[in-house]
Amino acid sequence: MARPPSRSPAELLDAARGGDRGALARLLSTVERGGDGAREVSRAVHPVGGAATTVGITGSPGAGKSTLVSALVGEARRAGERMAVLAIDPSSPFTGGAILGDRVRMGEHALDDGVFIRSMATRGHLGGLSLTAPAAVRVLDAAGWPWVVLETVGVGQVEVEVAGEADTTVVVVNPGWGDAVQANKAGLMEIADVFVINKADRPGAADTRRDLESMLALADRGGSDGGRGPAGSSGSASGPGPWVPPIVETVATTGQGVAELWGTLARHREWGQASGEVERRRARRSGAELHRIVVARLMEEAAALGSGAFFDGLRDEVVARRLDPWSAADRLLAEL
Amino acid sequence: MARPPSRSPAELLDAARGGDRGALARLLSTVERGGDGAREVSRAVHPVGGAATTVGITGSPGAGKSTLVSALVGEARRAGERMAVLAIDPSSPFTGGAILGDRVRMGEHALDDGVFIRSMATRGHLGGLSLTAPAAVRVLDAAGWPWVVLETVGVGQVEVEVAGEADTTVVVVNPGWGDAVQANKAGLMEIADVFVINKADRPGAADTRRDLESMLALADRGGSDGGRGPAGSSGSASGPGPWVPPIVETVATTGQGVAELWGTLARHREWGQASGEVERRRARRSGAELHRIVVARLMEEAAALGSGAFFDGLRDEVVARRLDPWSAADRLLAEL
Repeated sequence: MARPPSRSPAELLDAARGGDRGALARLLSTVERGGDGAREVSRAVHPVGGAATTVGITGSPGAGKSTLVSALVGEARRAGERMAVLAIDPSSPFTGGAILGDRVRMGEHALDDGVFIRSMATRGHLGGLSLTAPAAVRVLDAAGWPWVVLETVGVGQVEVEVAGEADTTVVVVNPGWGDAVQANKAGLMEIADVFVINKADRPGAADTRRDLESMLALADRGGSDGGRGPAGSSGSASGPGPWVPPIVETVATTGQGVAELWGTLARHREWGQASGEVERRRARRSGAELHRIVVARLMEEAAALGSGAFFDGLRDEVVARRLDPWSAADRLLAEL
Repeated sequence: MARPPSRSPAELLDAARGGDRGALARLLSTVERGGDGAREVSRAVHPVGGAATTVGITGSPGAGKSTLVSALVGEARRAGERMAVLAIDPSSPFTGGAILGDRVRMGEHALDDGVFIRSMATRGHLGGLSLTAPAAVRVLDAAGWPWVVLETVGVGQVEVEVAGEADTTVVVVNPGWGDAVQANKAGLMEIADVFVINKADRPGAADTRRDLESMLALADRGGSDGGRGPAGSSGSASGPGPWVPPIVETVATTGQGVAELWGTLARHREWGQASGEVERRRARRSGAELHRIVVARLMEEAAALGSGAFFDGLRDEVVARRLDPWSAADRLLAEL
């Protein structure tokens, strides 16, 4: 019997959980397209999942994030763990949602059932990346992937935010960073649970480590930071102490330091669970996402209100000074 | 008899139209504060006005905009015209809404009833500058000022947009510009009706003129530009031809070239009226403002929805996976 032409999100999710990579890819494509389809998928996957550890990896273009992620996948596999990667990196030659790109990225992992790598284009639809990325992560979580890595380029505010909304966030820098990430340095410092100095065989690695250490010391992490693990927020005197972001030096192209990074991720996961930080972050993320969805829904309404004969008529009344713009807006809003 | 403690917006407007500068300042302060008071003022002034010519002046910090505006005011006064200035320039030492700042800015014009200069701070309230600046311009228009100049620093997107929403937009550059405005160059090119090379006595003025001329040639102004006067959009074969943005060289500190700028503004006003471009721009501005008000109103609703016990309860349902975020958003929106 032929396969039915279209499977529901629930059917696709069942198949994806059974190892059907095509079904998983279709769920992710639907999420990526946004709109009603994405909502249906989100609704279908929501009851399932919560077991995945999510890792956000971000840093300036050219920092070697993709190579590092690929090496990290290898390390996870050697430890017997399965890992999915969602790459949102417009600076990467592989990104753009192209199947070829995904195959190229897969590289050595292409034939490994324990690895799933997906490039995602950043689209212009309402809510954009800030809605799409968490929804895609939830699909991978619901499909049973225990580790979900989200790679973004740490330049745009949204990209940094998205990487920061993970159980563990890794910020990748290079020796002599500074210029490229200067504008976002504060934002990157704020979200980092782990720093990686990649290309650490280049001159300046020791200086970069000192820079990071002094910035960490200055940041007074018990203070303004939003819950990256200060002792004061653990709420339990017997819990683990605060998390001080470690600095890991790697050379992703040779694999140097990648085992240490993997060990650090595992350690941060343990800390997050023991300290309650994972639960706190998930609640905060859910609240932030809920608010973003409300805003996106309202913006859709506003876009719909901002055109058409009714809008044009009211605008003409405003132009003719028979109606002030606030009263015109009231009439438009009354149409909601 | 003592003056009543509080005058209505309509009363203040009557007084302002009669020359009461204190009443005008109070109307502008109310607009600047935003909220219901600003809406009341907007409603009160809306039926009046439409006679003012609005001039947006923008450019990078340090381009000499404030000095140029002051010189332009002097030129307008010599021509027997009254002129009001709204300065929204966070890079200016005078800005911040301070009365002292306004007095300092007034300088030589402080005792001239035909001049009104007001510094406006950019505030963080919803809608912000993009709602406040046009509302303030309308107050000055309704109060009977025939020329209203809006000075903004051309760095932020909103500031450039606000300056672009004028009957005539002047972009001020310096010899050897480039770096400072590089990021916004396309945006500035798009809104400019007139270019001013200020500090034209410095080296590089001729190069800057050539740069601007070649960019203007490249821009193919009959194409993608949104109505800055291409012939194709005039809709009348007998109307005036397209407007090609002239380049005026000035040395604002000595007054050199300022008379030519004033003449150019007058010429662009004539062109705008003859070509119908003024009317088209005003209709477009009204539509854009109406849409912004709708968005601001919806964002206020969203902010109110994004906190409180009802929100927290729904978020907790999402965290517990009893409710998906889209359905939770539906319930929040149903509260509107």
